[in-house]
Amino acid sequence: MFKIFPIDGGVCAPEGFVADGISAGLKKSDSEKEQLDVGYIFMKNPCKVCAIFTQNTFQAAPIVYFNQFVKDKESNFILINTKNANAMTGERGVSDVREVMECLIKKYPQIKNPIMSSTGVIGVYLPKEKIMESLDKITFENKDNFSHNRAAKAIMTTDRYEKEVAFEVVLQDGKNFRIGAMAKGAGMIQPSMATMLCFISTDAKIPEQEAQKILESCVQKTFNAISVDGDMSTNDTVMLMQSGLSQAYDSVAFEQALLMVMDKLAKDIVADGEGATKLVGFRVSGAKDVFEAQKCAKALSNSLLVKTAIFGCDPNWGRIASTIGASQVMCDANKLSIKIGGVLVYDKGEILFDVQREKLASTQMQKESFMVECDLGIADGEFTAYGCDLGYEYVKINADYRS
Amino acid sequence: MFKIFPIDGGVCAPEGFVADGISAGLKKSDSEKEQLDVGYIFMKNPCKVCAIFTQNTFQAAPIVYFNQFVKDKESNFILINTKNANAMTGERGVSDVREVMECLIKKYPQIKNPIMSSTGVIGVYLPKEKIMESLDKITFENKDNFSHNRAAKAIMTTDRYEKEVAFEVVLQDGKNFRIGAMAKGAGMIQPSMATMLCFISTDAKIPEQEAQKILESCVQKTFNAISVDGDMSTNDTVMLMQSGLSQAYDSVAFEQALLMVMDKLAKDIVADGEGATKLVGFRVSGAKDVFEAQKCAKALSNSLLVKTAIFGCDPNWGRIASTIGASQVMCDANKLSIKIGGVLVYDKGEILFDVQREKLASTQMQKESFMVECDLGIADGEFTAYGCDLGYEYVKINADYRS
Repeated sequence: MFKIFPIDGGVCAPEGFVADGISAGLKKSDSEKEQLDVGYIFMKNPCKVCAIFTQNTFQAAPIVYFNQFVKDKESNFILINTKNANAMTGERGVSDVREVMECLIKKYPQIKNPIMSSTGVIGVYLPKEKIMESLDKITFENKDNFSHNRAAKAIMTTDRYEKEVAFEVVLQDGKNFRIGAMAKGAGMIQPSMATMLCFISTDAKIPEQEAQKILESCVQKTFNAISVDGDMSTNDTVMLMQSGLSQAYDSVAFEQALLMVMDKLAKDIVADGEGATKLVGFRVSGAKDVFEAQKCAKALSNSLLVKTAIFGCDPNWGRIASTIGASQVMCDANKLSIKIGGVLVYDKGEILFDVQREKLASTQMQKESFMVECDLGIADGEFTAYGCDLGYEYVKINADYRS
Repeated sequence: MFKIFPIDGGVCAPEGFVADGISAGLKKSDSEKEQLDVGYIFMKNPCKVCAIFTQNTFQAAPIVYFNQFVKDKESNFILINTKNANAMTGERGVSDVREVMECLIKKYPQIKNPIMSSTGVIGVYLPKEKIMESLDKITFENKDNFSHNRAAKAIMTTDRYEKEVAFEVVLQDGKNFRIGAMAKGAGMIQPSMATMLCFISTDAKIPEQEAQKILESCVQKTFNAISVDGDMSTNDTVMLMQSGLSQAYDSVAFEQALLMVMDKLAKDIVADGEGATKLVGFRVSGAKDVFEAQKCAKALSNSLLVKTAIFGCDPNWGRIASTIGASQVMCDANKLSIKIGGVLVYDKGEILFDVQREKLASTQMQKESFMVECDLGIADGEFTAYGCDLGYEYVKINADYRS
């Protein structure tokens, strides 16, 4: 057996990683002081970086650049800028990425095949001069114990707090490896499609053919529970960098730890959704299969009427039932059961919603986090999607001019 | 050729129809005066009533009742109640409908195979006693010139105003017929799934095999432009009653007039969307086919980020582009063009969004109604979906306890 326990250090926790946040003046307005707006991760020994990108047809320029020039090569550097997505910018966008990357290589010969990642406004050309000027601030040793945290801060957009995590995995033979990560989200993700970025570092020594497969499997169970492939922003990215320096590896332990990393960050992203006050899990069980369970769970987590009812702490189970019925999955009112915050309100055709249960459920809904459980009673497909409520703050953030 | 012109009278404009709104005390709280909450339409000579219902798996009890007991029979009466959807109420819900319908027949022998339609909260049993007590107020002659308007008022829920329309069609040979209708909507429809009801009356003499077909074709072009089949409430209903008393008919003229009736009501429903301040048309052209155009147009009209940008009068075309790219239709950034309120902001890979155009587009967005036009430049599929903005008022209405 193996043991997994949380450690400090974020993306710099595994051996061989340097990260920091710097300022390129992207977030700066005339009256404000400089803020961190460009983050980077450097890995001492280059390796193939695994990546999963948005399914949006209009992939942003840095993604196009990665697929054209970096994929399948060994790389050791990721540069992440905020305030500008470099999306819908055509060939000029891609050549802007290339220019910034060439500037990096020219300045720092230790950088191999650098990767760029961007988040921010769509349809505006990259402020590449500002970014290139900031590159002088890059260092190749961690300056202090907070550099990983500055990197996580630098990639934030409307996020209210930085999102970091790290675990140490101790294998049965006493060997150990580490996984660290940082992410940004803050939009309500699907269906609002604010960009989700996640960068994972590890010193585990993963067989080359396994890394991408495990990454995909874990994304499916975590980030895809908060965001549908086809409904992503132009920039969504999950990347895994592996230094291999621990010389240790166990596929079951690694997958488990990676799942924990992503699960934590995915929940952080939902809980930090724009204007969100609550994290809600929608567990659908008893579906025809896992795909129908997923379809139904996501329909619930995306329903405007369900989201606003949650904001109002109203255990309005009729809206939940109606959303299930509209989600086009196999279901039957006489087999369906619905629990809100553990309180059974509808059971196989029977309405159990009396004043007492209503009060109880409403009290549960006032918590920061609770579950909505729907058993379709058809077969054994199961999926849990995470969502948040929708309140005034969401409208405020997104109706504000050019947020 | 034929002529179509608007007339007064709503659902009572065609010959042979009686309608009114009465009060069953459903909307009444102790302190308030009685409000109209039950509407009815009576047709002097029974005929087969055409109907299109929600695709929601959990169809409400009145729909189940219609399909079991009324469909294919001649009918002459529709009773519509508010405040209670009679949905998720199982067999008891259906037997409650039957009880109310039997009470109607017993009281009034002139009523044949009456139909019920409901809108309101889901998952609460029908207050059938209150409704049955109110049936004594039914009359079989129009009391005055406002009875059609009282019927339209009675079926309102969160609607801010009643939705009625009527047209007279004069054929080339001088014969004429009329179409009238009333509707309720007010939820933001898809994706929030508030119930949409529409009742249409006509004295045209439609060949039996044609009526249902024309009704379906017109729904596809109108109500389905504001609402996807699979994403409807438990109660959505469109019904067509035909008295045949005019003895006149022309299929092209009838279809045109019916389309005008539904188009008017569909736009009224969107413009009266909960908390809506603007009606926006999303015209997608140049799509691979009409289905892809529809998919893309609806994705735009449902995007939370697009809806909130519209509320904020922000011509944030990047959100529009990102939504198109995420909608999984065939598209290409180098072929796409986007116009907001007639202002071209992106043209086949070229970003035209300068300060002047931005200002111009933002000014257009301050209007009560404007178009977002996206030419995908692939082939000639075209569809226009209608949507509205999402502001604070929507959250207020829907977060209020048990709205």
